[in-house]
Amino acid sequence: MKPGTGAAGKYALTPIGVIRSPLKSVRAAPNFYTEGAPRAAIEVYAAYRRGLSRMKAGDEIIVITWLHRARRDVLKVRPEDDPARPITGVFSSRSPSRPNPLGLHRVKVLEIEEGRVRVGPIEAVDGTPVLDIKPVVSEADDS
Amino acid sequence: MKPGTGAAGKYALTPIGVIRSPLKSVRAAPNFYTEGAPRAAIEVYAAYRRGLSRMKAGDEIIVITWLHRARRDVLKVRPEDDPARPITGVFSSRSPSRPNPLGLHRVKVLEIEEGRVRVGPIEAVDGTPVLDIKPVVSEADDS
Repeated sequence: MKPGTGAAGKYALTPIGVIRSPLKSVRAAPNFYTEGAPRAAIEVYAAYRRGLSRMKAGDEIIVITWLHRARRDVLKVRPEDDPARPITGVFSSRSPSRPNPLGLHRVKVLEIEEGRVRVGPIEAVDGTPVLDIKPVVSEADDS
Repeated sequence: MKPGTGAAGKYALTPIGVIRSPLKSVRAAPNFYTEGAPRAAIEVYAAYRRGLSRMKAGDEIIVITWLHRARRDVLKVRPEDDPARPITGVFSSRSPSRPNPLGLHRVKVLEIEEGRVRVGPIEAVDGTPVLDIKPVVSEADDS
């Protein structure tokens, strides 16, 4: 199977929400949230809001996104386009370009109101589909 | 949209490999890798092996799996089936049952040979599809 050709319906994802952020373009997106990404919100769709039960301000969560503007036909990248860094396989890189453009973002919950989860700095542009939210369960397991 | 109905082809995933483990059933799977999960291997399919370039023994990685035996129509669960714990939304739980059955596993690379990545203890059963592998980039960002 050629990379980037996609799969059968068997592995079909359903967005459960969307990122609402002042960050409007990939070009403006920092590489890591430590580099000044803005706070944002996860708008969870009505059909999935029951899944937020018991989430509260202060929780550390992992947001899994669909990096909808990334390329899927790439297997090697130059990290952060830095000429000083060697070409690297995508599986040893956090580049958004990869066969399955899944993004992982660890953030803190600031406030939850009616399916809107306000979170700390997150390096995802406005409109990015959200696929899952998981709690960080321990420092050792905070994958 | 009803939970669990799946999405259009737009969000279709392509497995890049598969878990090879002595763990053969969900019933036998521990809840967390700290509870005695066995070492396993990620068999990366030939078409994606270039993506492993520069990965090496000792690397800490995050493996994203498709929890193919999980239910997708569940929004609340009782964590670990423990009657002492309250019913919780799936987004505040690490239950495999959730709208998009994505699993996150932080493991250490033990050895890489011909597209076979041997890793430390991982709570995923034999045959679990692998969707992505990412490096842990820092303790603060090891989402």
